[in-house]
Amino acid sequence: MAIRKLAVADARFERSPGQDGEVFTANLVDQRHGGPVTIGFGRYGPDQRLEETMAVDDVMIVLEGMLTVSAAAATVTAGPGEIVYMPKGERVTIRSHGQGAMTAYVTYPHWQEARP
Amino acid sequence: MAIRKLAVADARFERSPGQDGEVFTANLVDQRHGGPVTIGFGRYGPDQRLEETMAVDDVMIVLEGMLTVSAAAATVTAGPGEIVYMPKGERVTIRSHGQGAMTAYVTYPHWQEARP
Repeated sequence: MAIRKLAVADARFERSPGQDGEVFTANLVDQRHGGPVTIGFGRYGPDQRLEETMAVDDVMIVLEGMLTVSAAAATVTAGPGEIVYMPKGERVTIRSHGQGAMTAYVTYPHWQEARP
Repeated sequence: MAIRKLAVADARFERSPGQDGEVFTANLVDQRHGGPVTIGFGRYGPDQRLEETMAVDDVMIVLEGMLTVSAAAATVTAGPGEIVYMPKGERVTIRSHGQGAMTAYVTYPHWQEARP
């Protein structure tokens, strides 16, 4: 597989499964391409809330806006250029704020294959 | 392992191995922490050049500045919020420009363990 540049302009956002709010994901590299990781962009409307038990290791890089992620042992808030690492098995609540958020994400393994 | 927020302010940059230029890396999560992926920040001085055969799958998110990555089949230039995916086995040349660059990176598996 060759090197690839991935930009938000290339992203086709779909509503993130398991919720009917304003949380969208766009995989650009995943199980269809033969590599071990999924890479994509995430988009959050203002004041959204998403609860999930992580079925994969998920690395979320905030590009715009701000997100608060809560779990049993910690609550963190990340802004542009900051990363939230959500290890497999953690039960998390992700909340966006007034300005929503845009993220890049990398998961291992492929999150779409790992969802129950 | 609990969720973690990672910020550049937490990063302790070290010169990237195999070169004596102005290219620095700072792992914040890696083989020492028990998860499958390495997560960190990269810092490039102006007009640097790094050649490497990827020993791991490496996802590089440009946070500041701009980087050009060349390989056999493609040359791409990425700016803030854009991603360059460098699959394992690819021979790449990474070049920074006049304003240098800051990146976030995620590798699978741990790049420090995979280096020849």
